[in-house]
This record gives sequence, structure tokens and C-alpha cells, in this order.
Amino acid sequence: MEAQAIFAAKKAINGLVSRTPLLYSPLLSQQYQCEIWLKLETLQPIGAFKLRGATHAMNKLTDEQKRHGVVTCSTGNHGRAVAYAGQRLGVRTVICMSNLVPKNKVDAIKALGAEVRIVGQAQDDAEREALRLTEQESMTYLSPFEHPDIIAGQGTIGLEILEDLPDVDVIFAGLSGGGLIGGIGLAAKSNSSSVKVYGVSMDKGAAMVESLKAGKPVQVQEYESFADSLGGGIGLDNRYTFNLVQQVMDQAFLVGEENIAKGMADIFDAENFAVEGAAAVGLAAIHQHQLDLQGKKVVLVMSGKNVSSDTFETALRIGRQVGK
Amino acid sequence: MEAQAIFAAKKAINGLVSRTPLLYSPLLSQQYQCEIWLKLETLQPIGAFKLRGATHAMNKLTDEQKRHGVVTCSTGNHGRAVAYAGQRLGVRTVICMSNLVPKNKVDAIKALGAEVRIVGQAQDDAEREALRLTEQESMTYLSPFEHPDIIAGQGTIGLEILEDLPDVDVIFAGLSGGGLIGGIGLAAKSNSSSVKVYGVSMDKGAAMVESLKAGKPVQVQEYESFADSLGGGIGLDNRYTFNLVQQVMDQAFLVGEENIAKGMADIFDAENFAVEGAAAVGLAAIHQHQLDLQGKKVVLVMSGKNVSSDTFETALRIGRQVGK
Repeated sequence: MEAQAIFAAKKAINGLVSRTPLLYSPLLSQQYQCEIWLKLETLQPIGAFKLRGATHAMNKLTDEQKRHGVVTCSTGNHGRAVAYAGQRLGVRTVICMSNLVPKNKVDAIKALGAEVRIVGQAQDDAEREALRLTEQESMTYLSPFEHPDIIAGQGTIGLEILEDLPDVDVIFAGLSGGGLIGGIGLAAKSNSSSVKVYGVSMDKGAAMVESLKAGKPVQVQEYESFADSLGGGIGLDNRYTFNLVQQVMDQAFLVGEENIAKGMADIFDAENFAVEGAAAVGLAAIHQHQLDLQGKKVVLVMSGKNVSSDTFETALRIGRQVGK
Repeated sequence: MEAQAIFAAKKAINGLVSRTPLLYSPLLSQQYQCEIWLKLETLQPIGAFKLRGATHAMNKLTDEQKRHGVVTCSTGNHGRAVAYAGQRLGVRTVICMSNLVPKNKVDAIKALGAEVRIVGQAQDDAEREALRLTEQESMTYLSPFEHPDIIAGQGTIGLEILEDLPDVDVIFAGLSGGGLIGGIGLAAKSNSSSVKVYGVSMDKGAAMVESLKAGKPVQVQEYESFADSLGGGIGLDNRYTFNLVQQVMDQAFLVGEENIAKGMADIFDAENFAVEGAAAVGLAAIHQHQLDLQGKKVVLVMSGKNVSSDTFETALRIGRQVGK
């Protein structure tokens, strides 16, 4: 993949997604001993960065593909993004999910204008239905990360960061399937020879980190995490992000649940933003690995804010104890 | 006071404060059985509506007054507003507070560019120092609500609501000193003959409600509340808001702590906004008083988002239990 694809994506999705602000946080800077800037993807209409990639990929479909529609299985931020982009672009969208998905998640996806198809008792059933729709109804399956247009869309975050803070030293972003860190890394490194790009995952079930260690995509067990947006595998047949992440990511960090919770609580206390765990992993990495970033300009990608009050309450409770 | 003052304020502070969005909430609408719109004053730079009044009042000072500077005692949203507006308008600001004020509040005010003067062990000591500064150093004291320019500034919220939703039926806002509800009521009623304006206070220590009952300003005891922004008296020598509120407010409601907490949790679950208790009193009123608003367009003023993680955690925990 070439950085050129990201410049093209920026032009293409201009006006369809938000050009988000980069906010300097004096309180977090003081607390974490470096200059901390927050890239507020929480302010995207769906409350998460995933809208960029989904919008770009869906916008580039042929008229025939748009007519047949788009299918995916995500009930999280990617699912919301596909639903929202579909409504915006006039593309039919179907989100397949199992009976296990809680009603509030189903309602949220429906409210964004997608059709919801509930099949079976497991995620695998939902995926089989999605596959059937691509084969029998000619719908297009949209992966959350394994697609050059998705990666290019997420990469526009990197271009915006460099526009707003050309001398940024370090960018932290969540590391999951690798679309976010891959896109941002490619964009950032095409604009700056010195910027470091760090990916952070929760320490249990970090598929990309385990795959990098193994030298090939591997499967990992999933665990509950405050950073649940970072769960899921990278696909054993990964074609794009596994290589890209190796090219453009300088280092990966693993962080524990308590430190993710502390990051969520610290962001809340400094800026009164409620963010999901995946957005707090950068602070968690600085704290847990005692990174010395004094004098550095550090950008943390606030990737999303979709967290339930239940989870957020628990995170604040745990995070505030860690902080003490 | 005339509505004309609010139109003038709108012109004067245009570009100095945010023109905030009015967001329709499908999930809250479904849950509370009416059309619910949120006026997002949480998006003001200081995270609260108070910036409007403070900016307008300080902008109107004479050059000499600006040179001598502005003093106030608030360590909450009004204090933040004065500090921020002072930095923006180039006016020296001094916030007097006692030694009781926690360090994080002191730091937040300092970070906004105000001088902090810490005097004595009680709020009264801070107020004496503020008085001394007005007398001996010719500084201007700025009340959080007892000033026509402050009221006119807050009233611009009402004009914006009517611009965005001309057929609004009901506006709920927190009722404390009366600057917010007075300004909004005056603005709204000058634009609509049918709109109802409801003020809501916590059921313990509601100074304006007690004063209205008594027919004159009275003092009340203060209690801790999730809606702490609504605490404080209206002043026994009240000259503006006591009369204005009687003119423009249709009804006042009192709400309990559990219902305020439920409102905070519901707003969080529907929109992932963390708001302070004062912003949740409208939902609390609908729930607690079982108001029948079916088919009505209802605006809730999200007055501020400045709440500690400690308080927010507690509110979510309590609020989610009430909801069940």
C-alpha cells in the first residue's frame, strides 16, 4: 500500500466524516510528564474513528455493488460505521448477529438505519449468514480492517495529526486488526522522518502482537477487556494489515486492565470526556512501562467513546484506586 | 429586563463563545416517551453555559474597568467562565477562595489563566477578600447571576433553541440563582407564545424555590448533591432574578438525588455524554413527577459536564440501580 491512497481517501471523504480537533491537555501533560494531545475521534457522528474507513470503502463501491448492498458482522464500532455510512450514502446495509447480542446493541444498529439479521446462537452462525448473503445475494462483505480502502480511510487520521502538529514526536493508537495503526503509520511516516508510531493492545488476547511474535498470523483466545474494541483476530489469511503493521509500527506495548481503567479515569478527570478502554491504552502504556517522554509531543488517538455506563462505572472505580 | 438585551448579547458574544448544537436523541425519546432534544452547552470551551454570561458582562466593561480587572469567588463553572473569558478578552481576573477548596479545582482555575487568592478557612473569608479588592483596588465584582448582562448572556441559549426548533413545546433547565432559567425564559417567550419553561432544582437546599414559596428571598441550608452546580443562595438583596423568574418560568420541580443519578446514567447510556448532575435534572423531573409529555418537543439544557470521576462513578452506580 502507498501513502498516496490515504491522500486520495482524505479528498474522497471530506464532508462525509468529521475533521476532528487535536486538543492539547494541560492537565494530562502535567500528570504524564510530556506534551499530551488528544485526537478526538470520539466526535465522529458514531462516536468512533471507524466511520472513516467504512465511509471511504462504501463510497468507492460501484453503482451495482451499492445496489446489492453491504454486509458485515460487527455489532461494535465497525457495525455502527457501516450502518451510518450506508444511510448517508444510500447503500443498503445488513448487519448479521447472533441471538447472544444484547438488545441495546441491536437497537443502536437499527437506529442508524441498518437491517439487522439475527441468526443462531454464536458469532459463527452470523458469519455463515453473511457469507451466504455475499454468495447468494451478491452483497459486498466489508471487513473491519482487511481492505485497502478501510486502511486508507483510517489513515486520514494520521494526515490530520501531522497537519495540526507537524513536529509530533510520538503517536499512540490502539492495536487490534491493524487498520488504524497501519493507516496512521503509513500516513505519518510519509510526512515526517522522525515520528514514532506505537501500537498498544490489552495484554490478554492481543492477536496482532502474538502474530508478530510468531512471524505469521495466529489465532488467540479472546478475553473480556475494558478495551473490548481491540478484541478479535487478524484473520489467518491476513493479506494487508499484518505486513503493513510490520512496516510502519515502531513498537507494540501490552497493557493490563487496571492501567487501562486508570487511563479512562485520568482522561475523565482531566477533560471530562468519557472514552472507551481502547482510547485509554496510550496513557496505560506510558504509565505501565514508565516511558520517558519528557519534552516530547505525544498524540493519543481517542478512538471511540462507545462504552456502557456499567463498564464505565467499573472502570472509574478500578482506575481511581490504581491512581492513588 | 427586556428581551432586547438578549438579542444584543447574542450579537456581542458571537465568535467569543460557541454556538452549541441542539441534538435529537432517539434513545432518550423512546425511553421518556416524548421528543427529546439536548442543548449541548457541555461543548462550550469550559464545559458549561456560564461562559456566555461572563463573556458578555466582561466584554461590556469600560476600558478602565477592564484595566482594574474582575474578581469573583466561584470555584465552579462561573469561576472557570470568568477565568477563561478574562484570558480571551485580556482582562485581569482574580478568583478568591478559601483553604478548603481542593487542589484540583485550584489548578483548573489557574490553568485557565486567572490569579487565585487563597484566604482563610471558609467561603466567607474569600468573599471578604473579594469585597476588599473591589473597594481598595477598584476591581469589578461579577456575580454568577445577579447582573443583567449575565442574565442576557445565558438567555442567548433560549434564542438558539428557538432558532433550531421553532415549535419547541417545553424547555427544562436547572434552577439555581435564576440567571439561566430567567434568561432562557425571557428569550423563549419573546419568540413563542406557547413554549413552557420549567425550572428544576434538587429537593434539598433549593434557594429559589423556597424563596418563591415565601414570596421573598430567603436563605436555605446547603446540602451535598449530584447537582452541586445548583447549590448556593439567591441573595437576600436579590434585585434581578427573583422577579424575572416569577415572570418567565411556568413551573418549578424538585427532584431527588436518585433520580438525578438516573438521569446522568440514562444520558450516558443513550449518548455517551458525561454530564454533571445539574444537566440531568430535566430527565429526573419527567421521571419522578411522571410528566405526560407524549407528542411534545422537549429541550433539556445540558448545562455542564464538570463532574469528578469520583462523583460520576457514584452517580452511575446509583442511577443504574434506580433504572432497573
